[in-house]
Amino acid sequence: MNAPLPAHLLPLLAPRPMPAEMLATLQAHFGARCSTAMAVREQHGRDESPIDAPPPEAVVYCESTEDVAAVVRLADQYAVPVIPFGTGSSLEGHLLAVQGGVSIDLSRMSRIIAVQPEDLTVTVQAGVTRMQLNNEIRHTGLFFPIDPGADASLGGMSATRASGTNAVRYGTMRENVLGLTVVTASGEVIRTGTRARKSSAGYDLTRLMVGSEGTLGVMTEVTLRLYPLPEAISAATCTFPSIDAAVRTTIQIIQMGIPIARCELLDAHAVRAVNRHDKLTLTEAPMLLMEFHGSAASVKEQAATVQDIASEYGGSGFQWATTPEERTRLWTARHHAYFAGAQMKPGCRTVTTDTCVPISQLAECVTAASEAATAASMAHYIVGHVGDGNFHIAYLVDPTIPAERELAERLNQELVQRAIDVQGTCSGEHGIGLHKMGFLVNEAGTGAIDMMRTLKRALDPKNIMNPGKIFVL
Amino acid sequence: MNAPLPAHLLPLLAPRPMPAEMLATLQAHFGARCSTAMAVREQHGRDESPIDAPPPEAVVYCESTEDVAAVVRLADQYAVPVIPFGTGSSLEGHLLAVQGGVSIDLSRMSRIIAVQPEDLTVTVQAGVTRMQLNNEIRHTGLFFPIDPGADASLGGMSATRASGTNAVRYGTMRENVLGLTVVTASGEVIRTGTRARKSSAGYDLTRLMVGSEGTLGVMTEVTLRLYPLPEAISAATCTFPSIDAAVRTTIQIIQMGIPIARCELLDAHAVRAVNRHDKLTLTEAPMLLMEFHGSAASVKEQAATVQDIASEYGGSGFQWATTPEERTRLWTARHHAYFAGAQMKPGCRTVTTDTCVPISQLAECVTAASEAATAASMAHYIVGHVGDGNFHIAYLVDPTIPAERELAERLNQELVQRAIDVQGTCSGEHGIGLHKMGFLVNEAGTGAIDMMRTLKRALDPKNIMNPGKIFVL
Repeated sequence: MNAPLPAHLLPLLAPRPMPAEMLATLQAHFGARCSTAMAVREQHGRDESPIDAPPPEAVVYCESTEDVAAVVRLADQYAVPVIPFGTGSSLEGHLLAVQGGVSIDLSRMSRIIAVQPEDLTVTVQAGVTRMQLNNEIRHTGLFFPIDPGADASLGGMSATRASGTNAVRYGTMRENVLGLTVVTASGEVIRTGTRARKSSAGYDLTRLMVGSEGTLGVMTEVTLRLYPLPEAISAATCTFPSIDAAVRTTIQIIQMGIPIARCELLDAHAVRAVNRHDKLTLTEAPMLLMEFHGSAASVKEQAATVQDIASEYGGSGFQWATTPEERTRLWTARHHAYFAGAQMKPGCRTVTTDTCVPISQLAECVTAASEAATAASMAHYIVGHVGDGNFHIAYLVDPTIPAERELAERLNQELVQRAIDVQGTCSGEHGIGLHKMGFLVNEAGTGAIDMMRTLKRALDPKNIMNPGKIFVL
Repeated sequence: MNAPLPAHLLPLLAPRPMPAEMLATLQAHFGARCSTAMAVREQHGRDESPIDAPPPEAVVYCESTEDVAAVVRLADQYAVPVIPFGTGSSLEGHLLAVQGGVSIDLSRMSRIIAVQPEDLTVTVQAGVTRMQLNNEIRHTGLFFPIDPGADASLGGMSATRASGTNAVRYGTMRENVLGLTVVTASGEVIRTGTRARKSSAGYDLTRLMVGSEGTLGVMTEVTLRLYPLPEAISAATCTFPSIDAAVRTTIQIIQMGIPIARCELLDAHAVRAVNRHDKLTLTEAPMLLMEFHGSAASVKEQAATVQDIASEYGGSGFQWATTPEERTRLWTARHHAYFAGAQMKPGCRTVTTDTCVPISQLAECVTAASEAATAASMAHYIVGHVGDGNFHIAYLVDPTIPAERELAERLNQELVQRAIDVQGTCSGEHGIGLHKMGFLVNEAGTGAIDMMRTLKRALDPKNIMNPGKIFVL
């Protein structure tokens, strides 16, 4: 059971019912690929956010850009909302049908359209997931590094400007999407970007769409940058006497320009959770989980330098995972932290924060978040892509106790305000969705929000593209 | 003497005269900082493009964001164009006052507002140039890598999404601008982005402004990423039997993921020009000029690997520049190529192309461009940021002979069409301006151009922000 939509968002619940004529047209066009079965609608009307809202009125399984365009043209004609759906792993309520409408399921658009190994580029349909992509291109010696944990779709990752564990070295979706095929709010198909690595040809429509959370158009194809699989990879864990010591180690790694590929923090709670879930025996103390990519010599040198820095801050118990199997085991455990953490408190829902701050402010922000949660007796754990200044504190909330949910929101609010005060952001990688609309106003200011609204009105005059997300129009 | 505005752009020459009342208000507000002297107007009405247009009606020297906002509010009131001016180094006619109006000179906004070495960030006023920035932050051990050759302003570099020699390792302005202060078309001041390294908080207004060439707002402050000065730097030149061999060496370097920092091609004409201009004795054959950044061991390893690759393609005469003085001499010579090249044909104007293609297509594109120019007996030289797939062929045109200008345009057109055919771009780093508007339509397609126009109309309903650039409204 999730929490109902918070009071300040209730005005969004102004359903825009789908006329029977539109549904009939959809059913005639898509046959069994258009479903109004309640189970299907409910599956498409929730995500990993702790919020409940009514499900969409129908779900259409699209198999091509032309399918998507056909749905959107009808939605435009009848002024009915559409919500793109990839794998349902959003944490911020992106998929909730707060104004009703049609869920456009893109999971069947799972074809790799073209891979150009010699150019380090690939074009995929939006429903391809990141793991599928990496499996299918393994033979080329290349990989796609962006790794948000969940096996999300590349369309969804583009829509939320996702990043994750490898971003410190390889950037985020912002840096790695070269071009898009987009169905606009009027149902037209446009292409943005090229396969060139850089361009200064006109407005950066690609970057405008990346992170727009389905509110400006539906992305149906994505062209991505790929990278050569490193000659050598080495992963290590290191245990620290405090969160502060682990984060200060990270800060120094970044300030020295060491090209570390992954640098993840787990607090003692998170380590305990993954130990239980994955039957590991990691020391239950604040830990950095790091990975180095490069030539054999460069990886060795990076690792030695990092070990020196860690030792200065009291880091100990350096454990190396050099075989692919050991590395996979560690990273799988890290990626299980979300589910492992939730199992620490049976029946709980997770309220996850997502602040990202300038690196010099990170130790204070993480420590303050940890101390505040502990002081309030709020069950929690912390994981962080600390090399980027991004961390998540997950509050484990009993959904049957409103006070717990309110406490989590209050703690989150304090945390976000601290991040904004030090010129950080309320969302490092999960997006705004429904959950962070208030925070975005505090962060961006009314001038920038007004500009976002102006763009939205210009590109989606009937407000049919995932309405009610990012800001209230 | 430049060429007049090409016939297809003549409709742009619809001046929107400034009412006397507006000029009087500007003069009352800005005193001597508002100039209508013809010499000042002419200086602000041209750039490094080969096109002539009438100068702006007035120039205002702004010293603050509030100054810029005051000019724009008046421009809004009277529906008169404004054109931001940094250093005047645009190659594509960005600064030309094709519809009259006021040039907003930002060169006095040359203050570094705040540098945060521990966060690897800096905030500057838009008139700060890249060399000034690097001089002023040298004591921090950090540097700003983006280097388009000219000592351009950071506002201008943001406006054209500039890049240059270091982009292969450090990215372009797209990746390195974290946030902006922008005066909108109504004269409001907004802030975009934060100092966090990444964010998924709302529409990416920063990336929308970067590359918008002054058509959506005037950037007055820019927050940038900085990088630690590498522990070791090494530069090398290597001579090749053909352009093809040099480019194929580059392609292999990129495909292997070697983190080369700079990888520049000069053809034999360009080498000859810099030899004469800078009194160097480089072998007058196709040459790669490379630079490696990293730890001492990593630089050595990268260089050895590259030397092996180059040898396979017949590269020879590897010359190392290990002292800062030698390196500076080489890179200064490279940056003089533009002026050195022009001196090969006294009185000429340079028509510079700027295509960027997927790396596998680069050898064919550069060779075809070279051969076509030679076959047409068009004086030219080639330089290229080949690690990114970006190269420039500069045609040296006698401005008194219209046929030469037409030939250069025809060659450019063929080159751009070839780039677009292989999914590349007509502009890697110089922007669209006046010169490439036709090419942009071919590249982006009418759907994407229509979306750009919609954005422009929404954010600048009176079309006062640098009108007549990027596309015809």
